[in-house]
Amino acid sequence: MKYILVLLLAGLTSNAQVQKEQLNLMPWPQSIVLNEGSFALSKNFKVNITGNPNVRIFGAATRFLRRLDGRTGMFFEQGFITKLNESPTAELQINCEKSGKIALYEDESYHLDIKKNKITINATSDLGALHGLETLLQLLQNNGTSFYFPTTQISDFPRFTWRGLMMDAARHFQPIDVVKRNIDGLAAMKMNVFHWHLVDDQGWRIEMKKHPKLIELASDGLYYTQEEIRNIVKYADERGILIVPEIDVPGHGTAILTAYPEIGSKAITLSGGTTEKNIQGTAITTYTVERNAGIFSPTLDPSNPKTYQLLSGIFDEVCPLFPGAYFHIGGDENEGKDWDANPKIQEFKKKNKLATNHELQTYFTMQLAPMLKKHGKQLMGWEEILTKDLSKDAIVHSWRGPNEGVLPGQSLAEAVKKGYKTVLSNGYYIDLMYPIESHYLNDPMPKGLNLTTEEKARILGGEAPMWTELATPETIDSRIWPRTAAIAERLWSAENITDVADMHRRLETISFRLEELGLTHIRNKDVILRNIANNQEIKSLNEFSNVCEPLKGYTRNKDGTEYKMYSPFTLFADACTPDAKDALAFDNAVNQYLANKSLENKSKVAMFLNKWIAVNNDLKELSNTAPLVRPVLPLAQKLSAASQQLLLVLDNKSTSKSEDLKNLIEECNTKDHADVELAVYNSFKKLI
Amino acid sequence: MKYILVLLLAGLTSNAQVQKEQLNLMPWPQSIVLNEGSFALSKNFKVNITGNPNVRIFGAATRFLRRLDGRTGMFFEQGFITKLNESPTAELQINCEKSGKIALYEDESYHLDIKKNKITINATSDLGALHGLETLLQLLQNNGTSFYFPTTQISDFPRFTWRGLMMDAARHFQPIDVVKRNIDGLAAMKMNVFHWHLVDDQGWRIEMKKHPKLIELASDGLYYTQEEIRNIVKYADERGILIVPEIDVPGHGTAILTAYPEIGSKAITLSGGTTEKNIQGTAITTYTVERNAGIFSPTLDPSNPKTYQLLSGIFDEVCPLFPGAYFHIGGDENEGKDWDANPKIQEFKKKNKLATNHELQTYFTMQLAPMLKKHGKQLMGWEEILTKDLSKDAIVHSWRGPNEGVLPGQSLAEAVKKGYKTVLSNGYYIDLMYPIESHYLNDPMPKGLNLTTEEKARILGGEAPMWTELATPETIDSRIWPRTAAIAERLWSAENITDVADMHRRLETISFRLEELGLTHIRNKDVILRNIANNQEIKSLNEFSNVCEPLKGYTRNKDGTEYKMYSPFTLFADACTPDAKDALAFDNAVNQYLANKSLENKSKVAMFLNKWIAVNNDLKELSNTAPLVRPVLPLAQKLSAASQQLLLVLDNKSTSKSEDLKNLIEECNTKDHADVELAVYNSFKKLI
Repeated sequence: MKYILVLLLAGLTSNAQVQKEQLNLMPWPQSIVLNEGSFALSKNFKVNITGNPNVRIFGAATRFLRRLDGRTGMFFEQGFITKLNESPTAELQINCEKSGKIALYEDESYHLDIKKNKITINATSDLGALHGLETLLQLLQNNGTSFYFPTTQISDFPRFTWRGLMMDAARHFQPIDVVKRNIDGLAAMKMNVFHWHLVDDQGWRIEMKKHPKLIELASDGLYYTQEEIRNIVKYADERGILIVPEIDVPGHGTAILTAYPEIGSKAITLSGGTTEKNIQGTAITTYTVERNAGIFSPTLDPSNPKTYQLLSGIFDEVCPLFPGAYFHIGGDENEGKDWDANPKIQEFKKKNKLATNHELQTYFTMQLAPMLKKHGKQLMGWEEILTKDLSKDAIVHSWRGPNEGVLPGQSLAEAVKKGYKTVLSNGYYIDLMYPIESHYLNDPMPKGLNLTTEEKARILGGEAPMWTELATPETIDSRIWPRTAAIAERLWSAENITDVADMHRRLETISFRLEELGLTHIRNKDVILRNIANNQEIKSLNEFSNVCEPLKGYTRNKDGTEYKMYSPFTLFADACTPDAKDALAFDNAVNQYLANKSLENKSKVAMFLNKWIAVNNDLKELSNTAPLVRPVLPLAQKLSAASQQLLLVLDNKSTSKSEDLKNLIEECNTKDHADVELAVYNSFKKLI
Repeated sequence: MKYILVLLLAGLTSNAQVQKEQLNLMPWPQSIVLNEGSFALSKNFKVNITGNPNVRIFGAATRFLRRLDGRTGMFFEQGFITKLNESPTAELQINCEKSGKIALYEDESYHLDIKKNKITINATSDLGALHGLETLLQLLQNNGTSFYFPTTQISDFPRFTWRGLMMDAARHFQPIDVVKRNIDGLAAMKMNVFHWHLVDDQGWRIEMKKHPKLIELASDGLYYTQEEIRNIVKYADERGILIVPEIDVPGHGTAILTAYPEIGSKAITLSGGTTEKNIQGTAITTYTVERNAGIFSPTLDPSNPKTYQLLSGIFDEVCPLFPGAYFHIGGDENEGKDWDANPKIQEFKKKNKLATNHELQTYFTMQLAPMLKKHGKQLMGWEEILTKDLSKDAIVHSWRGPNEGVLPGQSLAEAVKKGYKTVLSNGYYIDLMYPIESHYLNDPMPKGLNLTTEEKARILGGEAPMWTELATPETIDSRIWPRTAAIAERLWSAENITDVADMHRRLETISFRLEELGLTHIRNKDVILRNIANNQEIKSLNEFSNVCEPLKGYTRNKDGTEYKMYSPFTLFADACTPDAKDALAFDNAVNQYLANKSLENKSKVAMFLNKWIAVNNDLKELSNTAPLVRPVLPLAQKLSAASQQLLLVLDNKSTSKSEDLKNLIEECNTKDHADVELAVYNSFKKLI
């Protein structure tokens, strides 16, 4: 069946013109004209660069050649591109007017013109040309014997200037190679911001030469050296990516306070065995690096001058590592428990006429702004920093939504109306395992609010946060990709590019192509499954994983203590991803069958059901020498039981009571096994 | 069929005692006693450390716990192990008498005693304890529902003190993460030397602060910073691995001479346009980083005092990065062409009474020895350094064999007889794609030579060289592993551990377990195949790859110019490995059939033949939308044609002339397609 389809497509592409609807571009360009004809790729294909670009274009063009060579096996003659106008007669001519700055509001536009014998990329700056090269790579076609680019004109530019990914390197440390390959992924998807969450309750991740206690006591030896950070910044720069570092204060402060308990807010009585006296004679507590997930009380003391001394010193050391203009100071989820319980802090509030903890936090935040300004940095923080006294320079990072008891994007609208620039993350939480569609259709520009042009301009864009309480270096890529590609499209492409089915179609190729950058979102799945299967055949386990999805939202890690930071993440749920592959295909089959109960349509549905019955049997056998398979057995059994009954329903042979059948299907809605859920439950319901 | 087998085994393990022959230990320990009973693993399992070990044991024990947790999903309560005697009642007690040094001749022995309720590892130093932990991990069993260790006593120690892997980071630069994961692999296989080939014609890979030209002009930006090197040295130390750096001189000198042409040996006339005058008025040539593979003429000038000035300065900067006692100066493959052609060098030879270029090279080498000695380093070099004037301190690295026109291990015997210490690499060239058996049976201790005990003691051990002309960061792991595990066993285990079939049996599990260290030798194969298949189903491509092996020896890259360093290594040959999986299985089936032509045995052979006929058809269809499949089609066609005829032969229905059949099978011996060969040719021949 598969091969019949392949042959048909092959017939189309080798004889007829490739159609716009067949292109696998993502993010979809602003304007594209597809003409008849093509540019045939050959071994002699060369690149030439002219204009006044930044040197980053040379590395980018060289990498482009290597990737194209890897896909085509052409053995291009051209090696490293290192100079302007090296090959004046080259087939690919790149011209950039000026050197691009790694900053917001840069002109990232490009024009790509593919003619029969010549390809040109014209861009204001090399940043646009980098995007043009990615588009060109996505345009590669083949006719079965050779490779070509379709004759095309593309004019393209981003809708939003902030198109970001946040990576949490605090909960699970993410080594340099993880960071690098994901930066490559961002560049391939025309994203331009890498927000690096470097500090949280679970660890401090920046080498500190003047404050070595932070890494000695609060990193478990897992941190980036300053040289590594500089190298990453350079690596990102070469790919057109701005790095925004984050040191999360005053909440999420356990790691900092593990090293510097004297600036903590917790007041305790002197009678306890774990306390000690500080110089002022007030009692302080000690802290240890947090191993669980959640919101914790350790918070910096905003009334203590030492807090600001330390932070100022930290910024003096950290800011120079990051040439970008933005510094994220966190500011989220400070519950203020320790502030309420500390008489000294309460007194400070009174003295400074700060009515609420929220106002006290703004006081704290505003002390930080000049420390950052000194280094040319604008302050950014999660939306909790937004109160009446916040300076208008600050950027408000909108993240809360229904889960936090507010309307989605509420703070975004509030911020722009009050005159703040803002970035949207609510709706883009890729760590929470929601379906791609929910992110794809989440537009940063709120509808029905009648924002002025000025207010709209304050919406800089969006950012996908990848928190890592449940993600390790081995699994993080499969949490980020391919869903972040859909978010990239939301932030780059026109507002009306919202065809979910077409996005899914393109995404299959896009996801596959991201592999060439070293991303492990596809390859590491089998590694996990092999471990579970104890090196036996993983076919049935893989098939089962294609209808299972990790529990969504915050339900996988109950109370944040089921999984500690050092727990195993080699389990079935870690191999599964949102948008379970077969679930979508099955739902399509069910819908087709319900629309037309033909024999063929019925057999398509039955094929899935039969497969799942077989999978259950296989898994049972597999588990005999692989205990890690056991946790999934009850769920596989439920899928099989429901499948068996539904097969009878399809054939009108069911003798079960409607109530029993319903119960059987309800059983498939369980979240009790192996931290996954069956993604076919809703399709099953349609069948009865 | 597969599952029936699995069930039978499951029955055995859950009801009966695991047998010694079922254990997947590698390298096989010196002494093992398996008793009845087992130690059952539980969530409460803890580790305790006593004695006077180096701190590396804490990290090692913590990593051990995490790996065991990843395999079992136990959610161990114990997090980071950071102190002596933290959990006195722990089930696993590790005791080390003293702190191990990262050096040769250290006591690496350990005793592992698994009792029903207690496991102890006793070792002289933590280095032995590290090995004990690896053995314990390899002993993990399960009975279908839970995990356990069999009650066992193991006493173990290495046969040779030098058990190394050489990685060439010059031809293809190998990033930090590649180095790290392979160091983990070495540690898991109880190897203890990582020889880092850092300089060659194709690049200089060490950041030089006082000689920045080396990286500016001769690295393409691909090099290790000094901090990265220090971090790798620390990483290796934590895993009990000694790092031996190599700067290859005086031959293989193109990169050095690209930066410092003034110390090159090539004499040219002043009339050429590419020459310039140096201060002395003699003519020098310029060099550019080599992109091809092979032996090249650029060689340092041994008659020029500046050569020694520069090298001394380089050693002053590089030696302190490596605390180990050995420094490899290469010294191989200097053809002396440029020396012969340079009158100044000829004059120098005469003046210093150096009869041959070989003696001149020894003169050169001996100038380097004190530069290294100054930093406490012993000089090591490839066997060409061995001449009459070589100091007895030097270690001779034996590498040449029949391919270089000498007997295998000839220089090894010569060296030890002359009083030199030596390390064997001939027979361990894993880059050359020879079958594992050839490496496994290659013993460093020569037979029939009547060496004295003293002479034998000079044979330090062996080392597997991984040259990277044809290996990238994406493919290198599949060239190193799993074959290096067999070499590890040769170097650690008793001389009489030579059962190839048993090695193959154990290797399947060992190879799989190496995955948990991040090694990509298994997972990256599908990545390459997906690229070739243009993201279509890779099943048939994978099946075909299981009977194909990359061309052996130096035949893949004819003249060293077919592949340049920047050529694509994303081809079918890059997905294939030696010891093609199905070829071995097919050969077994053929042998069984020939011994007993039962219907069952015949059908086993026929199953393979039918599969390959189907594979050929599938590949043809696949190629319609995947041009990279095309190069393998002729070979798949030949395999299919021979398979079809052999099926007829099996059924006595063949009507072909014996000559035609023979020709058809001879066709399967081709090396003309896709840089691979069919690994079933010899088995085919048996069938006619």
